[in-house]
Amino acid sequence: MTQTRASISGRTAVTVILAHPVAHVRTPQAMNAQFDAMGFDGVMVALDVAPEDLATVVAGLRRMRNLGGIVVTVPHKEAIAALCDELTDAARQVGAVNVIRREADGRLVGGQFDGEGFVAGLSGAGHDVAGRAVFMAGAGGAAAGLAFAFARHGATRLTIHNRTVAKAEALAARVRAAYPGCDTRTGGPDPSGHEVVVNATSLGMHDGDALPLDVERLAPPMLAAEVIMAPEVTPFLAEAARRGCATHGGKPMLVAQVALLARFMGAA
Amino acid sequence: MTQTRASISGRTAVTVILAHPVAHVRTPQAMNAQFDAMGFDGVMVALDVAPEDLATVVAGLRRMRNLGGIVVTVPHKEAIAALCDELTDAARQVGAVNVIRREADGRLVGGQFDGEGFVAGLSGAGHDVAGRAVFMAGAGGAAAGLAFAFARHGATRLTIHNRTVAKAEALAARVRAAYPGCDTRTGGPDPSGHEVVVNATSLGMHDGDALPLDVERLAPPMLAAEVIMAPEVTPFLAEAARRGCATHGGKPMLVAQVALLARFMGAA
Repeated sequence: MTQTRASISGRTAVTVILAHPVAHVRTPQAMNAQFDAMGFDGVMVALDVAPEDLATVVAGLRRMRNLGGIVVTVPHKEAIAALCDELTDAARQVGAVNVIRREADGRLVGGQFDGEGFVAGLSGAGHDVAGRAVFMAGAGGAAAGLAFAFARHGATRLTIHNRTVAKAEALAARVRAAYPGCDTRTGGPDPSGHEVVVNATSLGMHDGDALPLDVERLAPPMLAAEVIMAPEVTPFLAEAARRGCATHGGKPMLVAQVALLARFMGAA
Repeated sequence: MTQTRASISGRTAVTVILAHPVAHVRTPQAMNAQFDAMGFDGVMVALDVAPEDLATVVAGLRRMRNLGGIVVTVPHKEAIAALCDELTDAARQVGAVNVIRREADGRLVGGQFDGEGFVAGLSGAGHDVAGRAVFMAGAGGAAAGLAFAFARHGATRLTIHNRTVAKAEALAARVRAAYPGCDTRTGGPDPSGHEVVVNATSLGMHDGDALPLDVERLAPPMLAAEVIMAPEVTPFLAEAARRGCATHGGKPMLVAQVALLARFMGAA
């Protein structure tokens, strides 16, 4: 079923994505296609909200009685957590929210599916993290979501590499505390000895970006996986492919995640 | 061009309609079809906002930087006027706002097109009010919009009939003050001596409603016109048709008005 804009009615569940800037977001297209696929009468629109306006906008959204939910992206993921009435375990662990469900009484429940979406995207492509050693470049917001998800889904070992080492150490300590079964440490740029190698930094989005890790050490049977969606093939993925590694782009993370986000917001 | 929901992007202009309750509204369907017809990448969603939440919601909408505009319907038309930074002449006259444009700096400009839409709908069906004597039942929010528009568009005489006579007298005095060229008075339920007879009350929406005026006195060449959209043929219109009068239903008012509202909100 392809739902038209002209079929939007007073019974259509309204969801929004908050971003700043907003022109580049891809989630409305993906979420509206997801609602189509579910046969769910819902719509997502994108709202451009600056950081200084976030609290005022969220107060308004809270009072919209037919609001299904709010998807949250850069730069609001951390700040919006403090505006929720309740957080899921994943959101509390990561310290960031990327989706909010509005309960009938106006209470806002914040969830976090970046990591779950990434792992589900891997899994859909036939790649498991359970029982594997994972190397991850990055320790920012996206990386935190991924790190907890890798540990939650049974990675035996997780090495976090980050230019600012203290950030990597802080994240590793939090993951260790939550999932002692996963051997989580910080490390240098060399991914040797790991089976899944992940770029969770933004390096590769723009021409001239440095590489996120030491690509000279990539070799089969390592899997190289990426959070960046555009370009579809980042320099990191190109270098990995050139060395014979299997690669996994950023798009499956979005595809897998919209289904999780839709269900969290009540679509059925 | 029929725009799909899945084509909604971060560049799509977002507009909303505020109502309570919201399930019955027809404007999103009509406005989204209007955007299609204009080839304009915009979307309208309906938001259920209770009166006690209106100020909080409007404060939030004000901070959404890509918000094109807000259409306003029952029960918010009067209350929201006080939340605007500026009103058009028509909105100030009527004392009610049915559309708001958001300026780039967040200022909200309130407009009022109920009367313009009604007159444009009449005109599109070949019926003019210029030079005519108009009888109108009702003195509420919708009626006020119509009364000023009839006078603005050159009705020579306007008789306002309302169950609560004081309300009719107050409205007649305001119209007289704004448009001394139109002979505006209050009257009983008998429409005799008028060329255009309008129901601007909500009588006829529900089974068992009283008739809004003395239908025994309807006779050609009177035109009977209605603000109610559902049912399509109200008892008032049925009685008028039975007596040989031309009739004009409530739908052209919506159709004519959405084009005016879209342009006011910046669609082009």
